[in-house]
Amino acid sequence: MKETRPIGIFDSGIGGLTVLRQLRKLLPNEQLIYFGDTARIPYGTKSKKLIERYAIEDAAFLLQFDVKMIVVACNTASALAMDVLKKRLPVPVTGVIRPGALAAIRHSKKKQTLIMGTSATVRSGAYTEAIQAQDPDFTVVARDCPLLVPLVEEGWLDDPVTMMTLHKYLDPVLNAEIDSLILGCTHYPLLAESIRKVTGPDVHLIDSGYETAYYVRETLKQLKLEHKGTRPGEDRFYVSDIPQKFADIGARFLGEPLAHLKRVDFENFLVEQNDRIEKLLSPKVEQ
Amino acid sequence: MKETRPIGIFDSGIGGLTVLRQLRKLLPNEQLIYFGDTARIPYGTKSKKLIERYAIEDAAFLLQFDVKMIVVACNTASALAMDVLKKRLPVPVTGVIRPGALAAIRHSKKKQTLIMGTSATVRSGAYTEAIQAQDPDFTVVARDCPLLVPLVEEGWLDDPVTMMTLHKYLDPVLNAEIDSLILGCTHYPLLAESIRKVTGPDVHLIDSGYETAYYVRETLKQLKLEHKGTRPGEDRFYVSDIPQKFADIGARFLGEPLAHLKRVDFENFLVEQNDRIEKLLSPKVEQ
Repeated sequence: MKETRPIGIFDSGIGGLTVLRQLRKLLPNEQLIYFGDTARIPYGTKSKKLIERYAIEDAAFLLQFDVKMIVVACNTASALAMDVLKKRLPVPVTGVIRPGALAAIRHSKKKQTLIMGTSATVRSGAYTEAIQAQDPDFTVVARDCPLLVPLVEEGWLDDPVTMMTLHKYLDPVLNAEIDSLILGCTHYPLLAESIRKVTGPDVHLIDSGYETAYYVRETLKQLKLEHKGTRPGEDRFYVSDIPQKFADIGARFLGEPLAHLKRVDFENFLVEQNDRIEKLLSPKVEQ
Repeated sequence: MKETRPIGIFDSGIGGLTVLRQLRKLLPNEQLIYFGDTARIPYGTKSKKLIERYAIEDAAFLLQFDVKMIVVACNTASALAMDVLKKRLPVPVTGVIRPGALAAIRHSKKKQTLIMGTSATVRSGAYTEAIQAQDPDFTVVARDCPLLVPLVEEGWLDDPVTMMTLHKYLDPVLNAEIDSLILGCTHYPLLAESIRKVTGPDVHLIDSGYETAYYVRETLKQLKLEHKGTRPGEDRFYVSDIPQKFADIGARFLGEPLAHLKRVDFENFLVEQNDRIEKLLSPKVEQ
């Protein structure tokens, strides 16, 4: 049965677990296969060319499991690699940018939104582009916040250092017209309460993970690929490296301990699958 | 002439440029070849196994240039991969840990030192081991400071956020007996002034980069490999990826703009040189 096939999710690390958590809530009957490219984290500081290659390699890893759809649970890869992924992958694929952008439009009465993200995500302009493609009159303010990922991973979710950093990033760009804010990095939902203290209660915070899970459910319905029976198998988690703090941080992101976690020899996979990956990367070959 | 061969230096990124800067000062006649593995930065959050592999791969890249010595200008790789590098490389190699540890002993009258570093460096216990191998009565206090690298890369060298973070890391571990402090990460020399404000003037700050350069000079003398004539060629800088902010940050680390900088296709190098690298990694083969 085509519908029993799993959904594949990848991220540069473990931030994407906040997206997986939302997918589980909205799609409890689906089996999920997660790949976190922890050996090469973070993507946010790297070039577009390299991120495109990494995204194709990550997707190639998931395709081994006969996945029916791929979710790019990484803002940087969603911002920089969606074109190449959509062109080259043999299954439907979604990133987190477009669902987040559409939600910002829905939730903003004053047509003004603030985007927080990594440097690479903000620099890409992908959220702005996605919003203005729908509504050219919409005003988008973007702020890159490179310190927030390390602050989350340090576990300083509401520490004075974090509050001061948030004020430093947000105070200069907040204004009375902004009534929606995109948490444009999968780490940021863990900072939602602290961010709300800085913005005040009138700004609607958008969790791209939730919006993406909603979008995936709709897509599977449309394509008649949703699975209605019991979940065909346990979720599985693969990573390209297991850092010491992984289990702690992962559990914090997922909201429960990580079961079925396995380190894969990704370097070896890349050497073995080099020809297939080069084919996926080559503009000459249409999938 | 053997002596005209260049010295190879590698780091996970650009932090090692603070080491190269010290090498230039102490060894103005030597040509330096730098490799920054910016595509896979940071090493500090990764496993020992992976860091050993990366270190061998980085060294293999430098060996192409017929280097006469290799400097591991990366605290994480120095902490976790020196054994494998010393066993497997066909040229002399030094890390930054041992020279820094010896300096801490020289500069401490009260036999107590504080080490600041990334999580991986501190967890490895490498500085403590290197110090206590020389003097088992020496007291070593270690503090991992994962937020300092992103703060330096953000350019917040003396920002209130940085000062508050430094106090949070250091206040609980500083005491009157500590009279030397190892800047156990190549990014930290840029924070030396701010760190001094927290420690007060009576703590001697140790820049492992300076100590390492001094050690390299002594080693080359002993091995009669020092070059006394005019520098045989310009220094060269290779990176596995060029992030957008690279030029800015690099110039800040080096103290001048980066000339002769080139991005190399490192993934391709790894695929092509796979057999040679596996040989270097294999315990069965002695070099």
